[in-house]
Amino acid sequence: MTTLARVKQAAAVLDGVARRTPLLSSPFLDEIAGRRVFVKAECLQHTGSFKLRGAWFAISQLPEEERARGVIAFSSGNHAQGVAYAARAAGIPSVIIMPEDAPKLKIANTRALGAEVVLYDRATEDRDAIGAELSAARGLSLVKPFDNPDVVAGQGTVGLEIAQDAAALGIESADVLVCCGGGGLTGGVSLGVSETALRVRPVEPAGFDDVARSLRSGKIERNAALTGSICDAVITPQAGDIPFPIMAQRCGPGMCVSDEDALRAVGLAFQRLKIVVEPGGAVALAAALFQGDQLQGDTVICVATGGNVDAAMFTRALGTLEG
Amino acid sequence: MTTLARVKQAAAVLDGVARRTPLLSSPFLDEIAGRRVFVKAECLQHTGSFKLRGAWFAISQLPEEERARGVIAFSSGNHAQGVAYAARAAGIPSVIIMPEDAPKLKIANTRALGAEVVLYDRATEDRDAIGAELSAARGLSLVKPFDNPDVVAGQGTVGLEIAQDAAALGIESADVLVCCGGGGLTGGVSLGVSETALRVRPVEPAGFDDVARSLRSGKIERNAALTGSICDAVITPQAGDIPFPIMAQRCGPGMCVSDEDALRAVGLAFQRLKIVVEPGGAVALAAALFQGDQLQGDTVICVATGGNVDAAMFTRALGTLEG
Repeated sequence: MTTLARVKQAAAVLDGVARRTPLLSSPFLDEIAGRRVFVKAECLQHTGSFKLRGAWFAISQLPEEERARGVIAFSSGNHAQGVAYAARAAGIPSVIIMPEDAPKLKIANTRALGAEVVLYDRATEDRDAIGAELSAARGLSLVKPFDNPDVVAGQGTVGLEIAQDAAALGIESADVLVCCGGGGLTGGVSLGVSETALRVRPVEPAGFDDVARSLRSGKIERNAALTGSICDAVITPQAGDIPFPIMAQRCGPGMCVSDEDALRAVGLAFQRLKIVVEPGGAVALAAALFQGDQLQGDTVICVATGGNVDAAMFTRALGTLEG
Repeated sequence: MTTLARVKQAAAVLDGVARRTPLLSSPFLDEIAGRRVFVKAECLQHTGSFKLRGAWFAISQLPEEERARGVIAFSSGNHAQGVAYAARAAGIPSVIIMPEDAPKLKIANTRALGAEVVLYDRATEDRDAIGAELSAARGLSLVKPFDNPDVVAGQGTVGLEIAQDAAALGIESADVLVCCGGGGLTGGVSLGVSETALRVRPVEPAGFDDVARSLRSGKIERNAALTGSICDAVITPQAGDIPFPIMAQRCGPGMCVSDEDALRAVGLAFQRLKIVVEPGGAVALAAALFQGDQLQGDTVICVATGGNVDAAMFTRALGTLEG
């Protein structure tokens, strides 16, 4: 199992590479929430999300010969850009397998970051077969988005930074709300803060609360639906085998927010924090702002991440603002 | 004249008070600019702009008895919020005089930050007379937005941080582009970097290039128009008597950008940096991206500030993005 020591090792590797993102706040958000709200603005990370941390650390830990042959990943989103950015910095090739109906901008961005993008037809082609064939032919190492101990350790550096910043602010205990898909970030953050009295809680979109249910039942549960929320970045069929036991050991109860509240949180992050967050990366902020009755204490910390939102969706979020 | 020593004194006062804003970058912006672009994201400052720095330091330097009676400022924008925030933190009253046709949200924000807002009718009332009467009656100290040596010193801390971060990145020389209205920020930043080989250059909206002309002629020139640009935060009739000689001594030639390019820069800051900047606070980024032929060297640094943009204007900026 990934350990705090491994998270600290990741922090040493990421020092000077990953950006140390700020912990933001606004008296206006405090007023809405009825308590102090601190927002770890991980959308300001290189490539717009924390995914860079895990990808970079995982690539750095590959044996040198394997690393030199390159890496491969399946993703149409933030993980794709994180892997492409880290691979280019490491001077190795990367192949990203994306559905051909992925947003053109995401495909273009991933290519612009130096990756070879291989497109497949969701209806007629098997992406795993394509990946397996390419990996075998070129000796590429697969970088999974969350079910990889080094990825969890890399994401855990977000938690280490939160622990340090909370200590500097004199915050001894608080709920730390984390946007949760497969659990790589949530599990990692729970390790990263494990020397403090901070308690990590996963936040998911309503209808995709597999992790909340899994934490209650003690075993990995699946979501019934695979699509149907604007929070696409955190819709994952089920938690990963590697992060789940970490979450089961360390996390508090999960929380759920509606798409509407996620969108309102995107709007308020624009208006009060001056940051750009995608809906899936705003669910933790939404829970902090609109579900205070489920929180304890006078302070809440949440992670906001994933700035890769298109202009049309962002315009919808702006429409939720008054005045 | 304000000195570097005074800027360093301001930095000591602002330590732990003003946020140390990050220096952001994106390979996509580098590609547009044809050189490395670093963006000092001062829109992430408390209240959304650098104005907090100068207001806080100026208030801290008032003799205790004067400070206790409170402060007064004229502003419908970022300076209003900076003064209100700093005064509340200092535990003193603040009065902000605003035109009654100022955006309701700005009035509401300034009140929510604890200020007493006094509205006046631009057509029939004289704001200076109202201010003088209130100041005399209550013994309030006027905090000017830029023509005040302590305000210039406070804004100069932005330059100190740029100098430190540039050194950490190994940047020895570069143009530092600064959004320029009355010259408080530009003059301050030029002092803040004065121990380095960085060269500060003011950037203004086209048609409001009084500082660029003043630097050429060696004396303070005025703008012909007082309205007519979306970059309202940096439209000032003329530079201040206090910052101008500092700029004349230390700054390189001014630059000008169109409203259209300022809006494109707002859109690109959204898409590539995940930050919210108002058009007036994006003119330096616009110059960095679109006027590379006027720059020297392989690196440019610019200040992006003023995140107090309304949803409608931001939606316009999003419309400039492709794809």
